[in-house]
Amino acid sequence: MTDSPIRFGIIGCADIARKVSRAILLAPNATLSAVASRSIDKAANFAKANGFPPQAKIFGSYDSLLDDPDIDAVYMPLPTTLHLKWALLTAQKKKHLLTEKPVALNVAEFDQIIKACEENGVQIMDGTMWMHHPRTQKMKQFLQDKERFGQLKTINSCFSFFTDPDFLKNDIRVKPDLDALGALGDEGWYCVRSILWAADYELPKTTTALRGPVLNEAGVILECGASLQWGDGKTATFHCSFLQSLTMNITAIGTYGTLHLTDFVIPYQEHQASYTASARPGFDELVTGWTPLPSEHTVTTDLPQEVCMVREFAKLVQDIRKNGAKPDNKWATISRKTQLVLDAVKASIEKGFEPVEIVN
Amino acid sequence: MTDSPIRFGIIGCADIARKVSRAILLAPNATLSAVASRSIDKAANFAKANGFPPQAKIFGSYDSLLDDPDIDAVYMPLPTTLHLKWALLTAQKKKHLLTEKPVALNVAEFDQIIKACEENGVQIMDGTMWMHHPRTQKMKQFLQDKERFGQLKTINSCFSFFTDPDFLKNDIRVKPDLDALGALGDEGWYCVRSILWAADYELPKTTTALRGPVLNEAGVILECGASLQWGDGKTATFHCSFLQSLTMNITAIGTYGTLHLTDFVIPYQEHQASYTASARPGFDELVTGWTPLPSEHTVTTDLPQEVCMVREFAKLVQDIRKNGAKPDNKWATISRKTQLVLDAVKASIEKGFEPVEIVN
Repeated sequence: MTDSPIRFGIIGCADIARKVSRAILLAPNATLSAVASRSIDKAANFAKANGFPPQAKIFGSYDSLLDDPDIDAVYMPLPTTLHLKWALLTAQKKKHLLTEKPVALNVAEFDQIIKACEENGVQIMDGTMWMHHPRTQKMKQFLQDKERFGQLKTINSCFSFFTDPDFLKNDIRVKPDLDALGALGDEGWYCVRSILWAADYELPKTTTALRGPVLNEAGVILECGASLQWGDGKTATFHCSFLQSLTMNITAIGTYGTLHLTDFVIPYQEHQASYTASARPGFDELVTGWTPLPSEHTVTTDLPQEVCMVREFAKLVQDIRKNGAKPDNKWATISRKTQLVLDAVKASIEKGFEPVEIVN
Repeated sequence: MTDSPIRFGIIGCADIARKVSRAILLAPNATLSAVASRSIDKAANFAKANGFPPQAKIFGSYDSLLDDPDIDAVYMPLPTTLHLKWALLTAQKKKHLLTEKPVALNVAEFDQIIKACEENGVQIMDGTMWMHHPRTQKMKQFLQDKERFGQLKTINSCFSFFTDPDFLKNDIRVKPDLDALGALGDEGWYCVRSILWAADYELPKTTTALRGPVLNEAGVILECGASLQWGDGKTATFHCSFLQSLTMNITAIGTYGTLHLTDFVIPYQEHQASYTASARPGFDELVTGWTPLPSEHTVTTDLPQEVCMVREFAKLVQDIRKNGAKPDNKWATISRKTQLVLDAVKASIEKGFEPVEIVN
């Protein structure tokens, strides 16, 4: 086997697939080979509008794409409720799987997907792009700095965006038979991931949903929050909402330092992203100002974060193909923990805001 | 009566009194007339170290300062537990009262203080300095902008600083017989105030303490948080701690806009302070960046915020003295609401994180 680019097929033409199509085109080790939609016209139009190479194949069904032997990996931007069926089929067809988040509706479904991937030796990764931005590694270095950041104490994370009446009536993210986890799945996923990321993926012991969530008539979450508690005293809170202005904050506070950024999910700009690090801040003599001031750090990147994601996924697939490596289960492990916390938040809402234990 | 400067006496020589002494010296309508300590040597040293005018009087007891007819107003930087006694005496002696926060240990005590102030026609204001920074007014204009900010949806506020073992053993803020409200009184006060400020002082309907507060052996709060709910769906969370790095964040999110700042209690620098306003943010076409970007706003001030506070307080006292105006109850009303929410947070912790209704 050679280091030839990983050949991607896309099943579904959701909006997010436009961004990821471009990312596959830009990734040095990936190529766009096919797109499938239940409507072949829609697939053809999608390929045309998104710069697919002329040799790319157009399919009128997901099945036919999965049957194509010239596809190495599938990108799945389908509604969450469809993930289980199509992820299982993808794995059974020995295609590697880059899936949109949330991976599944709950951990039970998640575990079926993982089992299928393991049994078929395919790589799985969820589409949490910001994990792959070089800024994320830089921030992690600060969080791990025992002298400047110390021990992690608390994290607050928020992801929200304002949606219009049409979204709140018709978008798949408010439909119980499509993206049934609503704002918790679409936004809270990122918040929970950021909290786990900051906590070195140590699962919290309990999760308690905050009072005052907003659900639509069909019971889909439009806004919610939760507080998380660890055994060592660490705590976290998050808030996600379809009903308020676009906001993407992480504040992670250690004994000695504070990490802060306001565009964690999607950086303000494509080729550079910043964060603030405050290390051992204190006051001046009369407590009329801070010393030292927090410092702002800017990380530049030639490749946007979603391209870094595709490149990383394709590299893992290349390793499997070329070197007979086993799929890297790091990403599945992280995804599963995220899903576990989502489950607990949902359960806590359903139990009237009682704390829910998280059992791995 | 003339517009002559308001003559301040200070009872107690706490560290914070150094900053406020300087503020009284810098305020155009105030003058430092006296300082009292239980030790006359301590008072004399304090006056000398803090640039008191040569004619300033030095007292070896708070009582004797309160008896001095040449004092118009008292600044009270005493431990919270002593506030009730000395605030009542201050009011009875017809001195106007600028008191450190928290004003009292609970609303019952607070109401006794207010009653005494009202009966004696004296002005009361608590020492929440950031309320008086010109930045605060500018931020409020953004929050009130129905086009750019919309309707307030949620607020997150955090105030913490890291303390050393000596503080955690000996500081008055960890002693049940001194500043018995601990971090909730010393830091949470500011968080709650910022939340009420953003909510136009509309009281939340319920407050629920977050799980995982840290109390010392004497039961004093070293770290805690709470979530607040309003009848119209607004929510807020806050976190305060003596156990983690200096952090002072407010994020207030409306339907259309987001206000954000990271130094709300004490600005990074004395003569300028910034905040970020994000108005109707969205994404670019492929959702690879934001448009418009949040804008940073810097407000300069000739007078530091604590001087603005003293000036405002002295102006109200001058109005009473010169024009026979009644004391302005705006500040008492705001203080009382802050105290009510603190009471509810404490009660919720004591009740095992049950929601506590807030009744005005």
